[in-house]
Amino acid sequence: MQKSFGFAAPGYEGVLDLFEALLAADPQYSAQLAAYRDGVKIVDLSGGPHITADSVTGAYSVSKGVAALVISLLVQDGLLDLDRTVAHYWPEFGCHGKDRLLVREALSHQAGLMGVEGGIALDEFTTSLAAGRLAATSPAWRPGSCFGYHALTIGIIMEELCRRVTGTSLQSLYDQRIRTAYGIDFFLGLPEELEPRYRDVLYDVDPLQPWLDPLSLDGLNSNAAVSTIMELPNQRPVRAAGMSAAGGVGTAEGLARLYAAAITGVDGRDPLLTPETVSAMSQEQVWGLDRLSGLDNAFAVVFMKPHVSRNFGSHRAFGHEGANAALGFADPAYGLAFGYIPQRAEDGRTQGKAHRLAAEIRRAASALS
Amino acid sequence: MQKSFGFAAPGYEGVLDLFEALLAADPQYSAQLAAYRDGVKIVDLSGGPHITADSVTGAYSVSKGVAALVISLLVQDGLLDLDRTVAHYWPEFGCHGKDRLLVREALSHQAGLMGVEGGIALDEFTTSLAAGRLAATSPAWRPGSCFGYHALTIGIIMEELCRRVTGTSLQSLYDQRIRTAYGIDFFLGLPEELEPRYRDVLYDVDPLQPWLDPLSLDGLNSNAAVSTIMELPNQRPVRAAGMSAAGGVGTAEGLARLYAAAITGVDGRDPLLTPETVSAMSQEQVWGLDRLSGLDNAFAVVFMKPHVSRNFGSHRAFGHEGANAALGFADPAYGLAFGYIPQRAEDGRTQGKAHRLAAEIRRAASALS
Amino acid sequence: MQKSFGFAAPGYEGVLDLFEALLAADPQYSAQLAAYRDGVKIVDLSGGPHITADSVTGAYSVSKGVAALVISLLVQDGLLDLDRTVAHYWPEFGCHGKDRLLVREALSHQAGLMGVEGGIALDEFTTSLAAGRLAATSPAWRPGSCFGYHALTIGIIMEELCRRVTGTSLQSLYDQRIRTAYGIDFFLGLPEELEPRYRDVLYDVDPLQPWLDPLSLDGLNSNAAVSTIMELPNQRPVRAAGMSAAGGVGTAEGLARLYAAAITGVDGRDPLLTPETVSAMSQEQVWGLDRLSGLDNAFAVVFMKPHVSRNFGSHRAFGHEGANAALGFADPAYGLAFGYIPQRAEDGRTQGKAHRLAAEIRRAASALS
Repeated sequence: MQKSFGFAAPGYEGVLDLFEALLAADPQYSAQLAAYRDGVKIVDLSGGPHITADSVTGAYSVSKGVAALVISLLVQDGLLDLDRTVAHYWPEFGCHGKDRLLVREALSHQAGLMGVEGGIALDEFTTSLAAGRLAATSPAWRPGSCFGYHALTIGIIMEELCRRVTGTSLQSLYDQRIRTAYGIDFFLGLPEELEPRYRDVLYDVDPLQPWLDPLSLDGLNSNAAVSTIMELPNQRPVRAAGMSAAGGVGTAEGLARLYAAAITGVDGRDPLLTPETVSAMSQEQVWGLDRLSGLDNAFAVVFMKPHVSRNFGSHRAFGHEGANAALGFADPAYGLAFGYIPQRAEDGRTQGKAHRLAAEIRRAASALS
Repeated sequence: MQKSFGFAAPGYEGVLDLFEALLAADPQYSAQLAAYRDGVKIVDLSGGPHITADSVTGAYSVSKGVAALVISLLVQDGLLDLDRTVAHYWPEFGCHGKDRLLVREALSHQAGLMGVEGGIALDEFTTSLAAGRLAATSPAWRPGSCFGYHALTIGIIMEELCRRVTGTSLQSLYDQRIRTAYGIDFFLGLPEELEPRYRDVLYDVDPLQPWLDPLSLDGLNSNAAVSTIMELPNQRPVRAAGMSAAGGVGTAEGLARLYAAAITGVDGRDPLLTPETVSAMSQEQVWGLDRLSGLDNAFAVVFMKPHVSRNFGSHRAFGHEGANAALGFADPAYGLAFGYIPQRAEDGRTQGKAHRLAAEIRRAASALS
Repeated sequence: MQKSFGFAAPGYEGVLDLFEALLAADPQYSAQLAAYRDGVKIVDLSGGPHITADSVTGAYSVSKGVAALVISLLVQDGLLDLDRTVAHYWPEFGCHGKDRLLVREALSHQAGLMGVEGGIALDEFTTSLAAGRLAATSPAWRPGSCFGYHALTIGIIMEELCRRVTGTSLQSLYDQRIRTAYGIDFFLGLPEELEPRYRDVLYDVDPLQPWLDPLSLDGLNSNAAVSTIMELPNQRPVRAAGMSAAGGVGTAEGLARLYAAAITGVDGRDPLLTPETVSAMSQEQVWGLDRLSGLDNAFAVVFMKPHVSRNFGSHRAFGHEGANAALGFADPAYGLAFGYIPQRAEDGRTQGKAHRLAAEIRRAASALS
């Protein structure tokens, strides 16, 4: 008896089988999965006791990939040059030896600006005030010596760059040029009237977890003086403001449609991004051990790239994972777009459920083409 | 009762003991081991049910070190300058942002050219056609951001550079200037008449291995659209063409003699390479986690260097390991040359059998000197 | 019943509790622990059967941090510029491609000068003769390609730079400007008359440890041709000469007072270092996998920085750990200075005892402020 709702197109039966097997293995497992190929929806599934196809859920850092599509438009429009310094657009940024940091470096986690002592209030995150405080800090490492995942502050940097070159907020641009333009069910700023659709992300807290020093690099990076990362999207003010780093909420279908709109177009429309923009934004900038987690990471301009511990796509794929193991990506080598959102936080590294599902979709696509 | 055939010179009895112990521990274990010191053979052993002293077997990427001795001659002769760009010798290479990549960078796995979509036919590997297709591709990462083991394509790059600066194939140069000149029993292109000496490499295939996406970085790197790495030397066309990356076959004695000829000379002849050439070619260019495997690797110009996970020699040692854990290297600090070929593929990382045997030989050499 | 001697100030009872728990868990455990905050001693504890508050013990590479405070003074006084080349001060260093290596690079383990073939005699370590031999060697890697912990030779480099810019030995400067000036119970050169206070460091030697090739990178780095790292401070000539890399001996109280003198001052006196000097010396220069151990390391100018595997302090903390897991550091974000010396060598990586004790102190400080 099929436990999931929705469909998988002919040729993608293996995807349905795997999703069913995941549901069968854990009665509490609830998730949404969707994919497009060449602009056509090929998979749209949901299942489990806590979620429906219509639920919107927090996707944490998947939001970074969504926001990066706005950055992609700024690059495509010639408003933002990846090879200019951040300080060119944002002069106050150029202090404490950060004057030569390039946009491409800041947007690939090389800035060393993990946070500010004392923390950033949740309602301050998407403001120029937060950007100003961040710009005034010293980098955590000698520029060029390493990269480390800026869990929250890369959103501040994206948003301020957007304000500086357009005068408009990243969230507004996303709404105008992407979400409403393409009918995307993913929000950087969930409207009040859609709140009934929101389902909290469920997650466990390890009671034996050691004390996290709010002044340590990790403490700054997670804004520990104020909150924890995991609680963010479950706070109405956070998902209302739609912070680029972790405040996005939506459906898996919305994510898949978004990435499809970006690289192949949907409903017969042209793709949002030219191949040149895709190529520039998805070129891997850094790979290796991450200064913050000590684990391996690979980043293009904002976007994550597939690598041995996050094996989600072909060499051309780009996207972003969230702290709950939600995943959204595009894979131009297959014409694929993918969205996955679990309601309970999972382990996201290979072989995570999202990676297994993505492999199954690519295998099917490979067999069909 | 001694199970092995051959000899270990006085002072190297511990090497014989270890080899005997390995044979005793596994009745299916078959391998060849040889070493020279200061141009004199000090160890020449073989044992196990599937191999004799005269068998030639696939050595996979050990071939890269063999081919790199040809590259060393080109550098020594002033035909190839490690500090020039690849594009200086091979203009078509200079596209997609690869115009400034140096020969030393391309030859230490920094190019990011893991393969081509669709794969390279086995009979195309040693041709300019493959080189042309590779030159036309985009690098997998921003130049300078990392290095990753080019399992097959570094052979294509070596071979094309050789053609460009000499007009001759790397395999022909190897045959003329090294193999026949020094009587080396290792082949980049096994003559038809020697086929009866060939023994297949034995290896296991994990039936639970997940699908390898041929368009992933790993899939491109292993040319998965066409074949698997492990089957390469067991294919007659591959060992006939003698692809530099993985097509070499021979004996352990041949490998040891080859590296002895290179650094100390054999039979009273001068060494093939000057100390300056050895120094230039064996200087470590990159170390750290490898973009492809996620494991640590250390490379000089083509050659592997000893490191914590591949602990084969002194700080001056250089050589190359194969996918079956075959190993060939020279160690100028001891005047040593070493060859090891197992018939069944083993785990090659420390403490692999080859590393233990090499340590025993160095320990004995250390005690004698 | 309290097993330890000494005190923990009000608010730091949790530190005492943890130290007591460590003593209770292992009857052989003996250690000293001390901390200052804003120049005032807040913790001073010792316990276990083999040590008293007055014992001085070897602290191995903790000595590097102590010596680096002398380097800090040279930088503060304008005698040494981190952005000049080593060869500017020490012309003989500029051979074998090392002519462009900066002081900041050499002092953050980027030089690749792990040792000299044949080893350095113990009585030669603190002499210009050792420095001359080291300067004449080739780097182990292409400059800029990686960093690796120079277990002993970074002391030689510090000492020779000190001689070149002041004409005086680093040990003499330490004695004059720091130890006697501030009454610090930590010695780079233990006076003969204090020998009765010395307690040997206890440590285990793994009888199954594989042979260490003295000509390997590890063998050079540990000066294996001459001695082992662990025996160093237990040799009277070593602690008499007080080699900067590993010859320092003292008490935990001495270490804590030293770092307090450096950043906050003690006894109402001004701190030894200005905030600018602290900032320059404690800026992280390198992080990642260490070429020698293959494990992660983070270095400022000589000083270690906190990171995932050595989680001792806030983002501003700097100090150094020893091979026995002794630890000394300053943490300007908390106004803290910390010293810990166990008598039996422990595992130093997180969560080591020192890291747990340091976290407890910071947690208490955080609650109090």
